[in-house]
Amino acid sequence: MKPAIVLLSGGLDSATVLAIAVAEGFEPLALSFRYGQRHVVELEAARNVAAAAGVCEHKILDIDLRAFGGSALTDEIEVPKDHDPTGGGKIPITYVPARNTIFLAFALAYAEVRDARDIYIGVNALDYSGYPDCRPEFVAAFENMAAVATKSAVEGGPVKIHAPLMSLTRERIIRRGLELGVDYGLTRSCYDPDDAGRACGHCDSCQLRLDAFAKVGVTDPAPYITA
Amino acid sequence: MKPAIVLLSGGLDSATVLAIAVAEGFEPLALSFRYGQRHVVELEAARNVAAAAGVCEHKILDIDLRAFGGSALTDEIEVPKDHDPTGGGKIPITYVPARNTIFLAFALAYAEVRDARDIYIGVNALDYSGYPDCRPEFVAAFENMAAVATKSAVEGGPVKIHAPLMSLTRERIIRRGLELGVDYGLTRSCYDPDDAGRACGHCDSCQLRLDAFAKVGVTDPAPYITA
Repeated sequence: MKPAIVLLSGGLDSATVLAIAVAEGFEPLALSFRYGQRHVVELEAARNVAAAAGVCEHKILDIDLRAFGGSALTDEIEVPKDHDPTGGGKIPITYVPARNTIFLAFALAYAEVRDARDIYIGVNALDYSGYPDCRPEFVAAFENMAAVATKSAVEGGPVKIHAPLMSLTRERIIRRGLELGVDYGLTRSCYDPDDAGRACGHCDSCQLRLDAFAKVGVTDPAPYITA
Repeated sequence: MKPAIVLLSGGLDSATVLAIAVAEGFEPLALSFRYGQRHVVELEAARNVAAAAGVCEHKILDIDLRAFGGSALTDEIEVPKDHDPTGGGKIPITYVPARNTIFLAFALAYAEVRDARDIYIGVNALDYSGYPDCRPEFVAAFENMAAVATKSAVEGGPVKIHAPLMSLTRERIIRRGLELGVDYGLTRSCYDPDDAGRACGHCDSCQLRLDAFAKVGVTDPAPYITA
């Protein structure tokens, strides 16, 4: 089996992506980050998701995005509780500067060392609140850059960035994951969970998730404070 | 004065780039990394170089490139002592996987938070031992990616990656730096220095540096073990 690097946050999307990488015949090497996020319960979720999928290697890297600040997810800025589904045409303050660029850069290093030519990332352009680094033009531009960035690419050929969720609604993502046997009870999406890891049910991320499970017609198996 | 992010390693090249950024009218914000490199004396050099240039903000980030391995600069692989000036057509084992991609990704985050539209990096295609991420096509591809990667770029215009040393010989780099008043005695380039920070005089990096100072016709003011 060919190795593939899978960026794994512990959220709903990346758990689905991991299952897709396995279904597509790759041996997944999972990569997560402790990056100063306020929602560190994600990492415990990432460990559980990786274990459930039988991942043979799961690396968790420490990187300090708080050194720069600039996001409600890493700073002491209050996470907004009232979801504006239109996004008001603006990029929300939960955006973390250059996060996916940084995550993919590390994935590229990991791929090179393990001689992997495939990287999976759970970005989604449809309902990801307008983050610029979740759009197809970003993924394509990163792939073009990666093709000239590494010894592995120069000597052995380019790395493919797989973004299988890019054009899926969250409803379709969940349906695909359920078909592949993903246990969404292990995943966490909330921007502002309590100490026990229970979701707030009100932030952008919770509202998108709850809305999607409602459309699928199943109950979200993850724990909620209000449940 | 407009801010610019300057990647600062403590070596000869980045010290020159910092002086160029200042000469080009920018207020430099310096960014260095503690990345598991064996030559940590570079970081002390970076601090000294930044202080000498009057940099108002210098961030040193911890990132663990040793988590992946794969390079003589971060692993327990012996640094080669016999410089092959042709490179033998191969990329040397001192290459660190995706290093400049990772460094520029963090610089992009820093630039976004400080509202800077300019990033300086001391890459050099002529005598940088054939590292793929020191070539003009890499810098151009990263710039293209950065233009679609961040909120700042999407809303306010692209970030420029300045690589002012790209087509200079190391001899010309030193001449330019001396014109700008760079104190090369503060810089360190050696891949394998002793505990006091003195250079070995034999590794790839030392030989390129000593050769260049000889061509300029001045003595390298940095300390060497054999001096």
